[in-house]
Amino acid sequence: MEIKAIKTRIFRENEDLTSFILKYIKKLSENSILVVTSKIISLSEGRTVPFQNKKQKIALIKKESDFAIKTKLVWLTIKDGMVMASAGIDESNAYGKLILLPQNSFHSAELIRRNLKKIFKIKNLGVLITDSRIFPLRAGVVGVALGYAGFKGLRNYVGKKDIFGRVLKMTRTDIADSLATTTVLCMGEGKEQQPLALIANAPVEFIEKSNKKELKINPKEDLYLPLFGSILKKWKR
Amino acid sequence: MEIKAIKTRIFRENEDLTSFILKYIKKLSENSILVVTSKIISLSEGRTVPFQNKKQKIALIKKESDFAIKTKLVWLTIKDGMVMASAGIDESNAYGKLILLPQNSFHSAELIRRNLKKIFKIKNLGVLITDSRIFPLRAGVVGVALGYAGFKGLRNYVGKKDIFGRVLKMTRTDIADSLATTTVLCMGEGKEQQPLALIANAPVEFIEKSNKKELKINPKEDLYLPLFGSILKKWKR
Repeated sequence: MEIKAIKTRIFRENEDLTSFILKYIKKLSENSILVVTSKIISLSEGRTVPFQNKKQKIALIKKESDFAIKTKLVWLTIKDGMVMASAGIDESNAYGKLILLPQNSFHSAELIRRNLKKIFKIKNLGVLITDSRIFPLRAGVVGVALGYAGFKGLRNYVGKKDIFGRVLKMTRTDIADSLATTTVLCMGEGKEQQPLALIANAPVEFIEKSNKKELKINPKEDLYLPLFGSILKKWKR
Repeated sequence: MEIKAIKTRIFRENEDLTSFILKYIKKLSENSILVVTSKIISLSEGRTVPFQNKKQKIALIKKESDFAIKTKLVWLTIKDGMVMASAGIDESNAYGKLILLPQNSFHSAELIRRNLKKIFKIKNLGVLITDSRIFPLRAGVVGVALGYAGFKGLRNYVGKKDIFGRVLKMTRTDIADSLATTTVLCMGEGKEQQPLALIANAPVEFIEKSNKKELKINPKEDLYLPLFGSILKKWKR
């Protein structure tokens, strides 16, 4: 598998995303995956709000998330089934503006995919929209898949056999996040200015319609349930 | 960045790991990272226990972890500063044996690194030992770094400037886990039999002595603190 981050100029708000991508990507091979950082998706969709004050930001955090509680460190939120700080609202890299996450990253990924498939006349193309998260008890951020299109984001080993011929009962692999992490590392978080990346030879299955629910888990089946327990109780009220 | 998973025969318990690696890796370039799945590290270190019964396994889970509580689904444990099920003890791929995690994956990584550096006469070499974990509220597993040597596992952007010239205050990137995820995806979880992988052109800084504490976080500074709160209280007792 090969990952190549692509250096670009700064993306401007409300700019046409496809034209921007075509400036830097002149060739797209069959079975490749285009990775796009969520920030330029948000900017292309005008998902920004001029920053006024803290109170406004808190109201936005609540509005943008399914669940939000203030902790000592941050506003801890659950949005689109993911745990994150401040509903993913970002103050960095913006002209005094707050950047919200894309409205629907799966939909945005599908739109990009349809456009580029037509332009490059290819059949199999994946599009992956990334952001950053942290693992519990770990320092530093890792990439995460906000949305994707054109490939299966979850690989199911259930029913397959292991190297001793025994049936594997439990194993599923979170492909979308696995691809997002290393690619976000290659794209960088600081002043690298690499909002795009291309992945070749990824061990994924290309499909026409990705299932946007496949990575979501019933909180009751989550390993972390005892940790989330108190929060889920509040959530249901 | 390029990732190449390496197909091997089945690794046998107590086999010499360096000899095994040398069977499949005939050349190691300067600045590459060798990835090794924790399972064959454990097997090479004889970290297995014949499975007797459930009670024995539960006792082992408690012994191997810093914290363990039984939940509806699994034994939720904290081991080496990471949240995992069953202290990482694995029943699959073993000859009726339980496979424990390596005793000290950072140390194991350093030993492999020293050996291979000498054999291949190279200066910069990373070694990364991987396992699998799940993200909160996400289906499927992703790779994780259990231990590593020869490179910085945490990249610090604190004090650096963003693309608008403003100083970044908070951003750190968890490099080790970011590399582990995609590589574990390439290595596979089922019958692929690819316990080794090579990474070339990774955006990492090679160093002589990795800091095994750099990815650990003070639980009090963790985003997930409100979730872990109840557990930490029990832990301190």
